[in-house]
Amino acid sequence: MAIAAIDKLVMQLSKLPGVGQKTAQRYAYFVLGMDKEQTREMAQALLDAAQNVHPCPICGMYTDQQTCEICTDKRRTDELICVVSDPKDVIAMEKTREFMGKYHVLFGSLSPMDGIGPNEIRINSLLDRCNNGGIKEVILATDSDAKGDVTASYIAKLLKPLGITATRIARGIPIGGNLEYIDEVTLLKALEGRREM
Amino acid sequence: MAIAAIDKLVMQLSKLPGVGQKTAQRYAYFVLGMDKEQTREMAQALLDAAQNVHPCPICGMYTDQQTCEICTDKRRTDELICVVSDPKDVIAMEKTREFMGKYHVLFGSLSPMDGIGPNEIRINSLLDRCNNGGIKEVILATDSDAKGDVTASYIAKLLKPLGITATRIARGIPIGGNLEYIDEVTLLKALEGRREM
Repeated sequence: MAIAAIDKLVMQLSKLPGVGQKTAQRYAYFVLGMDKEQTREMAQALLDAAQNVHPCPICGMYTDQQTCEICTDKRRTDELICVVSDPKDVIAMEKTREFMGKYHVLFGSLSPMDGIGPNEIRINSLLDRCNNGGIKEVILATDSDAKGDVTASYIAKLLKPLGITATRIARGIPIGGNLEYIDEVTLLKALEGRREM
Repeated sequence: MAIAAIDKLVMQLSKLPGVGQKTAQRYAYFVLGMDKEQTREMAQALLDAAQNVHPCPICGMYTDQQTCEICTDKRRTDELICVVSDPKDVIAMEKTREFMGKYHVLFGSLSPMDGIGPNEIRINSLLDRCNNGGIKEVILATDSDAKGDVTASYIAKLLKPLGITATRIARGIPIGGNLEYIDEVTLLKALEGRREM
């Protein structure tokens, strides 16, 4: 009952994040039930993305232009850079519609245990941008977990001698958060970060 | 920040069953992070499946041959047909390694509310097979829900005048099932289906 083309499709789809054998099989049989034209469109979308989309050489965000829309946007200040771990984080940040600086995508976080040191993520290109001058503040918006914190601390230390202010996004109670369900570490951070009203 | 190739990929991936906008975006950004060669392999797997795999003209199970391996297997009896709703169900059934008859895939269940009547699923081709003679028993292994039951009853009624025995797979407590967690309808069916030991 092994059909090579189906097995191959299941194997390929199981590469997607969080997709195991069972889900990949579900996807594969769904694909087999689609019109051939629809399947071709799906395959073409994969090929087009691989062909046309690449990281912006300045900030690392994905773009289909030479440099990305944000880096070339004249209305945005060059004095402020928001550092994130992942291209998806740029999208999340942009949804606030408030940040009017530029970005820098690291493509990962420092994680010595996994062999990810400073040279494995885009820290050098961030330093290059900082050394070129004109940058006043770098907001470290890496994830609020151990790896994200280590990455933020590491970069902050490198920025200090350059006279650039390094800031970390605030940790605290999420909006709508119910105090009794918030873990104690978050509560502690929220207490530490309290402001006069 | 809209990148056409990414948006298109997200849209295409969100067609997969159970995949919403958020998951499709996660998949799309994962794909963007893959090697181009890997993405090409994934696209090719989709194209190959659409190109080479089709329903077996006899039973409806997917195959890359003219007729499927099961239909052409001489060791399997032609006297027994197991009717299932979906190609995936054939795989589930084959895992028992016990069933040595043939299959018939309906590609759906009767569902008048959704406009799915007898002509929308492969009931006529099942009757054709039955009319050709040689079939003694048809096992109705459609799902154990309302649609599956209706479909099974409908087919059983059609088979009666042909002198073919129609059977329904047993409903009861699943192996390892803990009585206190079993719903009352299943318990009732298990009671009704009790056997002398």
